[in-house]
Amino acid sequence: MLHWLRHYRRSLLAGDISAGIVVAMMMVPQGMAYALVAGLPPVVGIYASIIPPMLYALFGSSMTQSVGPMAIISLMTAAALAPLAAAGTGLYTVLAAQLALIAGAVLLLCGLLRIGFVANFFSRPVMSGFTIGAALVIAWGQVEPLLGGGLRQIHLPSAALGLGSLLALVLARRYLAALLRRLGMSAAAADIGARLAPMLVVLGATLLTAALRLPAMGVHVTGAVPTGLPGLNLATSPDGWRKLLQPALLIGFMIFLISMSAAQTLALRRQEKLQSNFELIGLGMANLGSALTGGFPVTGSISRSAVNFAAGANTPLASIISALLLALALIGPTGWLALLPLPTLAATILVAVLGMLELSTLRTAWRYDRSDALALLATAGGVLVLGVEAGVVIGVMLSMANLIWRASRPHIAVLGRIAGTEHFRNIDRYPGATLPDVLLLRIDANLFFGNVEAVNARVEEEVRAHPLTRHLVLVMTAVSEIDTSALFGLAELNLALRQRDIGLHLAEVKGPVMDRLKDSDLIGMLNGRIFLSASLASELLARKNDYDI
Amino acid sequence: MLHWLRHYRRSLLAGDISAGIVVAMMMVPQGMAYALVAGLPPVVGIYASIIPPMLYALFGSSMTQSVGPMAIISLMTAAALAPLAAAGTGLYTVLAAQLALIAGAVLLLCGLLRIGFVANFFSRPVMSGFTIGAALVIAWGQVEPLLGGGLRQIHLPSAALGLGSLLALVLARRYLAALLRRLGMSAAAADIGARLAPMLVVLGATLLTAALRLPAMGVHVTGAVPTGLPGLNLATSPDGWRKLLQPALLIGFMIFLISMSAAQTLALRRQEKLQSNFELIGLGMANLGSALTGGFPVTGSISRSAVNFAAGANTPLASIISALLLALALIGPTGWLALLPLPTLAATILVAVLGMLELSTLRTAWRYDRSDALALLATAGGVLVLGVEAGVVIGVMLSMANLIWRASRPHIAVLGRIAGTEHFRNIDRYPGATLPDVLLLRIDANLFFGNVEAVNARVEEEVRAHPLTRHLVLVMTAVSEIDTSALFGLAELNLALRQRDIGLHLAEVKGPVMDRLKDSDLIGMLNGRIFLSASLASELLARKNDYDI
Repeated sequence: MLHWLRHYRRSLLAGDISAGIVVAMMMVPQGMAYALVAGLPPVVGIYASIIPPMLYALFGSSMTQSVGPMAIISLMTAAALAPLAAAGTGLYTVLAAQLALIAGAVLLLCGLLRIGFVANFFSRPVMSGFTIGAALVIAWGQVEPLLGGGLRQIHLPSAALGLGSLLALVLARRYLAALLRRLGMSAAAADIGARLAPMLVVLGATLLTAALRLPAMGVHVTGAVPTGLPGLNLATSPDGWRKLLQPALLIGFMIFLISMSAAQTLALRRQEKLQSNFELIGLGMANLGSALTGGFPVTGSISRSAVNFAAGANTPLASIISALLLALALIGPTGWLALLPLPTLAATILVAVLGMLELSTLRTAWRYDRSDALALLATAGGVLVLGVEAGVVIGVMLSMANLIWRASRPHIAVLGRIAGTEHFRNIDRYPGATLPDVLLLRIDANLFFGNVEAVNARVEEEVRAHPLTRHLVLVMTAVSEIDTSALFGLAELNLALRQRDIGLHLAEVKGPVMDRLKDSDLIGMLNGRIFLSASLASELLARKNDYDI
Repeated sequence: MLHWLRHYRRSLLAGDISAGIVVAMMMVPQGMAYALVAGLPPVVGIYASIIPPMLYALFGSSMTQSVGPMAIISLMTAAALAPLAAAGTGLYTVLAAQLALIAGAVLLLCGLLRIGFVANFFSRPVMSGFTIGAALVIAWGQVEPLLGGGLRQIHLPSAALGLGSLLALVLARRYLAALLRRLGMSAAAADIGARLAPMLVVLGATLLTAALRLPAMGVHVTGAVPTGLPGLNLATSPDGWRKLLQPALLIGFMIFLISMSAAQTLALRRQEKLQSNFELIGLGMANLGSALTGGFPVTGSISRSAVNFAAGANTPLASIISALLLALALIGPTGWLALLPLPTLAATILVAVLGMLELSTLRTAWRYDRSDALALLATAGGVLVLGVEAGVVIGVMLSMANLIWRASRPHIAVLGRIAGTEHFRNIDRYPGATLPDVLLLRIDANLFFGNVEAVNARVEEEVRAHPLTRHLVLVMTAVSEIDTSALFGLAELNLALRQRDIGLHLAEVKGPVMDRLKDSDLIGMLNGRIFLSASLASELLARKNDYDI
């Protein structure tokens, strides 16, 4: 913590300042737009972009993470609060902060308990499916503000502004970087310039709104944004604690997952080590800070963090600079923010979430592993049909089901000796010599509760298929762990084989596994021996039976 | 299915008949007692012991499983129905059957979808913890009927009868088998005789109740049991479907888990192959049958199945015989069943569930793997504090958390060449020669979403610890599977290493893993080569760099 501050060098400052400015300019429309997605007044999105990134800078572990409002977490916030209060009411705003408070406390607790490994509960295809489902839900929610009304009651001036903004943003996304490069900017600078298109489009649309007096024509705008920094918010709803707990747990989990996947991508590029437990603490503090300054749940954003990194951020100082700039914006005149047209904000959200609709994971999974692809589609479908909270639960269940399903089909190979060598290989792949009464099985999986019955069943099957077997040797090259369930399973197998006078032997048991087995009763009960290698086992057991190989 | 019937031999009949009689005599007090645990009239327990075991005999996969009422499932039934209806009401009985109907339909569906692997979601320590917690809850619930009132308002005649029955049962459990052996019975026969003690105690207590006119003194008895077979029950509560769905899912899951663990133990002893999907179908049909004959959720009972097996059951015919005997008992005079004293039934339940309180799993886990022992205790605590339904969820979560936690600490070994050989071993355990710029890492785990980040982090760490590394070789001896998440992880590692001009090579990739990798883009992108063995990799990479070993 604060390692970066103690070792700060002046040479890092330029990059941090430029990234701070770029991210602050991104944050203004994004923060306001995502607050609207969450059903909150736009200024709340700015509040949530000041203290949270500062706290993350002090406690988090990623150097280039940009913490603040994020589309999916805003959607989850709206889903959590919808049954409890009407959007726009004071209670709703209080509950949003309370949600951040609970989620933050949970994240902090998890960090202190060092259970950062929970990030591994989602497989990547499931995460991709969740993101796609959430992006579609968010996009659908933007249709009405974009058009100023439902599909059948389009408000023409709003729709013109919204679709115009959308067109401008799409064109900017596709061509602006190339244009800026042709105008002589460096590739990096052009890319960053293109990232600021939303801010420019929002500014242009605001000027247009003011010039054409669009609000008088019925175009909705953000409305007065209070000047001044957010105050200390200690308001909570006593009723909320119990009702918010479950959604807060799910939101906290997704805050962590989304932030980790953003941070991991960048950490790998910067060859940094990411500490998941510090990440939990950083995110926990950020959300507590958000709650105490009237904000709502926040997380690290993949797209914003990538911009932060690309714009030259070297340390979390970039986030602090951007937060200070946003604070300055709130102290200065905020009148212009009041005229920000909602159709344009909807267009910025649409373009942002359409960027989340990436299908390359689906394509790869479809070719490489159909079950992963189906899990992706099921999670996306779950979010669309049952909602974003159910989507998280479905995602975890599918990831786990996939894991347990794979485990229930352990790979077990019958080994044979390759002629003239001491090597034993799978006889299905290499022709090898076997002994009639010694069966060598290599177990290609760690032994744990998820596969213990399947392993025993497969072993029994092989013993039945080799009815002359008097010695069964389990070759444990690939077994790095045997849990308590598997220990019982081995003991049962040993007993079952003993009833038939078949010896159960182990070979090539790894050091750490053997160390732990010594603490158990299994070794003493074992109806056979432990051999250093498959070839030694084969040789000694054959000799014992007066066979010659 | 029905394989046993087509191959039935006369020599099997004697065993099946004797087991059928013994189990029927066990079923009478047990069925009635477990119906009381579920909050149902005692006769419902007999109803649930007739059609369900017959249907299981036709569709199930275990030869010696005894399906019927079971303590834990009865407790879960009571927990599920408590918020929906008052025990003893007609609605309660209807809802109990409806619960069996939904659970049965779900089990049947799971069987047809062939997802029997879900049985692997519970680790054995967690199952043990769940059983211990449930046994304690059931035992606590028996204190009041045993004493005829709460601890402060003991009803003396009831308490005398209850505690007397308890004493008789405990003594019988401890000494009866030895006594019978001393009286000249064979060990097996003596054991079975001892198992019938509950029936004898119940008979004795019933006679005593009649002789001393205990009901007039305030001792509660079962009350009139309707004569005749159960009728077809089609009554359901329209309100119940939605409210019963979640508890029915949890109960269905536990029905399957409990039955599988009973069946597995016996299948291993009989060297039978258990088909988890047929088990699901058998249990599904049994529960549907229970629902349609006015019963409640049923499952295979470990203790009853063990008796069935010990009493000589060879095929499911034993269960059919025992069901027919129970049907006969209902057709015959049932007046004597009306005088069955509840304190004595409570005593039989207490003795039965105290038998479930086995601590050997806890002891083994405590010595062998502390985290498994803690999961056991947490699950037991969860059942005690939060209830039996929460206990199931906690159990699954702890099993999965344990798995993901283990996965997040993958074992990765730096390999060195053992002098004068072609063998490469972990340099922490065997002194071996390494090359300054070729780093060989053996990954001792399947690569999947649960460990992909941890593996990348460990690899990065090792690369940092060996700053001269120009070639990183991942030795894949122990890797039997790479899922889509891990495929992306490897691609990211490849990219990160390429940025530093470090080659990423693979060695000893298993056949099935290589077959699948060929379908992916990884091989084409790989910033290195694929070697058949670690020694070839080491040799060729060293030569490339003009090193000599």
